[in-house]
Amino acid sequence: MSGLIQIIGNDGGTWLAADGPEAGIVFSSRVRLARNLVSMLFASKAAPGEQKTVVAAVKSGVQKCPSLGQLAFIDFSRLNKREKRFLMEGYCISREMAAGDGKRAVFLSPDRELSIMINEEDHIRVQSILPGFQLREAWQRTNTVDDELGERMDFAFSDKWGFLTACPTNVGTGLRASVMVHLPGLIMTREIASAVQTVSRLRCTVRGIHGEGTDITGDFFQISNQATLGQDEEGLVGNVQRIASELVAQEKRARGVLLERHKMQVEDRVGRALGILGRARMLGLEETMSLLSALRLGVCLGLVSRYPITLINQLMIQVQPAHLELSSGREIEPGTLDGVRADVVQEALARR
Amino acid sequence: MSGLIQIIGNDGGTWLAADGPEAGIVFSSRVRLARNLVSMLFASKAAPGEQKTVVAAVKSGVQKCPSLGQLAFIDFSRLNKREKRFLMEGYCISREMAAGDGKRAVFLSPDRELSIMINEEDHIRVQSILPGFQLREAWQRTNTVDDELGERMDFAFSDKWGFLTACPTNVGTGLRASVMVHLPGLIMTREIASAVQTVSRLRCTVRGIHGEGTDITGDFFQISNQATLGQDEEGLVGNVQRIASELVAQEKRARGVLLERHKMQVEDRVGRALGILGRARMLGLEETMSLLSALRLGVCLGLVSRYPITLINQLMIQVQPAHLELSSGREIEPGTLDGVRADVVQEALARR
Repeated sequence: MSGLIQIIGNDGGTWLAADGPEAGIVFSSRVRLARNLVSMLFASKAAPGEQKTVVAAVKSGVQKCPSLGQLAFIDFSRLNKREKRFLMEGYCISREMAAGDGKRAVFLSPDRELSIMINEEDHIRVQSILPGFQLREAWQRTNTVDDELGERMDFAFSDKWGFLTACPTNVGTGLRASVMVHLPGLIMTREIASAVQTVSRLRCTVRGIHGEGTDITGDFFQISNQATLGQDEEGLVGNVQRIASELVAQEKRARGVLLERHKMQVEDRVGRALGILGRARMLGLEETMSLLSALRLGVCLGLVSRYPITLINQLMIQVQPAHLELSSGREIEPGTLDGVRADVVQEALARR
Repeated sequence: MSGLIQIIGNDGGTWLAADGPEAGIVFSSRVRLARNLVSMLFASKAAPGEQKTVVAAVKSGVQKCPSLGQLAFIDFSRLNKREKRFLMEGYCISREMAAGDGKRAVFLSPDRELSIMINEEDHIRVQSILPGFQLREAWQRTNTVDDELGERMDFAFSDKWGFLTACPTNVGTGLRASVMVHLPGLIMTREIASAVQTVSRLRCTVRGIHGEGTDITGDFFQISNQATLGQDEEGLVGNVQRIASELVAQEKRARGVLLERHKMQVEDRVGRALGILGRARMLGLEETMSLLSALRLGVCLGLVSRYPITLINQLMIQVQPAHLELSSGREIEPGTLDGVRADVVQEALARR
């Protein structure tokens, strides 16, 4: 068994086991803060020795914080590619963190709601992720951790610019607030393009489920603030909160229209998804995400009552390749991954 | 309720309720003989009055044959378009018979295995259709009927050419022997093109399920003799029999290869078909035929044990548009036909 699985388990993240406010439309809310230690080179410029010093300094700082005693320390030099991907698939770390090199580590809370990445792009990235629409709560958590850490280490800060970061797009607050929304209704009513356009005009960005440069999969969109400068943290979080609320309202309207005018088409899509998920012997990742999206819509609209939304949320993570491999406890040949995925889906659906 | 349904019922043809030899691959075997009355114009050249005379003459002749007393007489002037299509969908009459104009009628046996069309392209077309691979039996039946009719009326016959027919491609024996085969294996192993080429070289034609000019649907192919001249009836039937036997052997080999080397792919196709057939709320005709084809393959390969092959054969007829309308006993709006089809499929599948 993977050492990582021994540390954090393979249930796909306990925060996924609960639903939150507006769970039918909002998958998760996330806030991350970028911080760097004063008088140290940024991670990408630092030699391995200096990177190690950063890891040691942050590790020592975190371990001194009374509220962070529960966090597990995971040294990336002891993880293989698959284990890093596993953490990324479960939203414990960023895609950049999973893909990059260098001396890296992450602190992770047992419920996986809180993580502190060390030597990602910045020395420190504090992330809080929560199920459903809980953006302010996520912000409060990162803020508390930031305060605690700030008492124990010196962050690079300029009176003119605010917090200094490796990439200028993060300078200032270093804050990225994002909400992952499920918008099958706006897609089916063909209103999604104008909705996305509106979001972009309001200083927010729309991305795929794993952030910048990733595809929109299964009708999921990540909405986050464009700028980190020029507004305080409350303002930035509030803006994303407002825009996400508006999208939630639009999606609700769209779903209402679907139920009223195209109920049979929706039932057809949901029924086919359930039929294929339950009977296919091989399921590709992209197809599975699209089918789970349809099933999720069916659950939210009350067309399918057998499955709770949290089961589908967990499945969305469990069908990812590294989760399939680490959960099965064995190396899976590329040609047979789709078969293993179908088995996992069918076992989960049959259990209820 | 339609008058036609009152006469012949709506169970899709009783011959479909039985399977025959090689039922896993051969859907049906059919022989038809074209005959014309001497000294009468061919149907397409005849005025309505003369067409009527032909109907009366054939009707009187058939009714004098002791073995044909059970046949129902159906006057086409009393059928609407939908009822004609219903007969065509159930293989009781040809596509040309359903589509054409003029004074027409058909005699039909209660089990729908025997039909005598009047004023199709020729004055008389005797057809025998049987489930599975029973081409010689079908030939014997048409031959017996031909003998009986020949004793009671004069057929146009030339010593040089044999039986005279409206279209020169039928002159001679007036015989068309055809076998409808289900070849999903040869399609999945990509051997179908060369198999079809071989058939064509051996003086046989490959057509869709409703004969000339119709599409190949659901992996079903109709194999029939090209020429009706130059060989006696036994020889013509024997040739189609041999070629169909060879195709059956090839399809068996292909299915063996699939099971041995691509079992999971086949199970996937069959499972998905079952999942969609069982859960979709709307099913188009072409998609349904393709899904039923996959399910039929699954039944034949022992991957699905719940459904007998005859259920699937009957469904292939029952999902056709005129069958859906006449069975439901009401006019179905075009936009809702796919929904009715899904209901019919699911009711049939749930019954077992």
